[in-house]
Amino acid sequence: MLENYNLLYEGQAKRIYSADEDDQVIVHFKDDATAFDGTKRAVIRGKGEVNAQISAHLLPMMANAGIPTHLIDVLSNRDHLCHKVDIIPIEVVVRNVAAGSICRRFGFEEGMILSRPLIEFFYKSDELHDPPMSEEHALLFGWAEAWELAYMRHAAAVVNVTLRSFWERLNVTLVDFKLEFGRLGNGRILLADEITPDGSRLWEKGTMRKLDKDVFRRDLGDLSDTYRELHQRVFAQKD
Amino acid sequence: MLENYNLLYEGQAKRIYSADEDDQVIVHFKDDATAFDGTKRAVIRGKGEVNAQISAHLLPMMANAGIPTHLIDVLSNRDHLCHKVDIIPIEVVVRNVAAGSICRRFGFEEGMILSRPLIEFFYKSDELHDPPMSEEHALLFGWAEAWELAYMRHAAAVVNVTLRSFWERLNVTLVDFKLEFGRLGNGRILLADEITPDGSRLWEKGTMRKLDKDVFRRDLGDLSDTYRELHQRVFAQKD
Repeated sequence: MLENYNLLYEGQAKRIYSADEDDQVIVHFKDDATAFDGTKRAVIRGKGEVNAQISAHLLPMMANAGIPTHLIDVLSNRDHLCHKVDIIPIEVVVRNVAAGSICRRFGFEEGMILSRPLIEFFYKSDELHDPPMSEEHALLFGWAEAWELAYMRHAAAVVNVTLRSFWERLNVTLVDFKLEFGRLGNGRILLADEITPDGSRLWEKGTMRKLDKDVFRRDLGDLSDTYRELHQRVFAQKD
Repeated sequence: MLENYNLLYEGQAKRIYSADEDDQVIVHFKDDATAFDGTKRAVIRGKGEVNAQISAHLLPMMANAGIPTHLIDVLSNRDHLCHKVDIIPIEVVVRNVAAGSICRRFGFEEGMILSRPLIEFFYKSDELHDPPMSEEHALLFGWAEAWELAYMRHAAAVVNVTLRSFWERLNVTLVDFKLEFGRLGNGRILLADEITPDGSRLWEKGTMRKLDKDVFRRDLGDLSDTYRELHQRVFAQKD
């Protein structure tokens, strides 16, 4: 269905196409999975659909919680119509439990529960492997304004509370997740990212079994099965 | 002269001994130089004396500028009597020009002049290679209190202004430097570090010739000669 649209950008897990309106784009979710800066790659059957559908379910929930997102409409099982934004080159990571890079950087044990959610910023750059950064870097190097950083913190905190209780009801712990934000022409900021198990760590309560992309990163099983299971949990609850 | 004192700690370039008073220590400056987390090592004849004497000259200058330091008295050409402190495990780096790790992390060119001084925090850990950190990490993981971080920023900024104009008069650009701070028993914070060409980047104005430990790190010449030259600049000006 996207033959008539121009490919604007191809990322690791998504393609961005032009849309009928100049200020909109079509986000297409691929089945490709990559890890470790693209050195590990695979095609995970059905991943694009699961991610598109979970994100289509969760982004409106964030909008209802007061954090507007780029999502305008769902066009198909893999395609979202979105506002075109100028992406702020900062990845906002919210952590409730220590896992992944924070354990490597600071020598923490995986699974250490944080006494309150931690917000971390990373400079968005594939070549530089998304290095950790502080607000001062953003201000000095012009990556974001102070009020934008404050808004992103606020939005990330609200998203965390909202997502945590969503996953909690499905017996899943929200360990951490990554968000990106973008500016509209008038400077307004939208949450401009997917919310999927590609960009979150989700552990089954009690067993701590991983229900996210770490299954692929760390060869813990069949990611296709894991994503299908997660999809069932999400949409069983919907009814 | 230190035979009667107990060695409390041996670092890469210094030894810390007990002193006659329980709340004091003797800091002894060694000739050893290390780089790249200790993988490159050498003994640089006279380095300990140059560092001890430059630091003995600069630390009182900081105290005069309103930033009290751990230095109590100079005991010899290599030995300082200092207040014993509980070191805050955070390295405070002030940068006026991009060089070293900030260039590697963010892809900047060495020599890029920053539009204002940048303060960066690193978690002090040899095993973890001093990873970059933010204030939030310090607060969440109990490494420092908010007011301590604020004081360290303030002190680092004052030290930067004071040191910049000192080096400027000697025709040297202060590119960056590292500071550590420590707590006294009553919680008061002291600048508790050396101020030397081991922990600073110093470039001759105009030529941009390096007058600091990068000469050793990057095999740019004889560090012993470089340090002797710097010593002469500092103490020629003194008279």
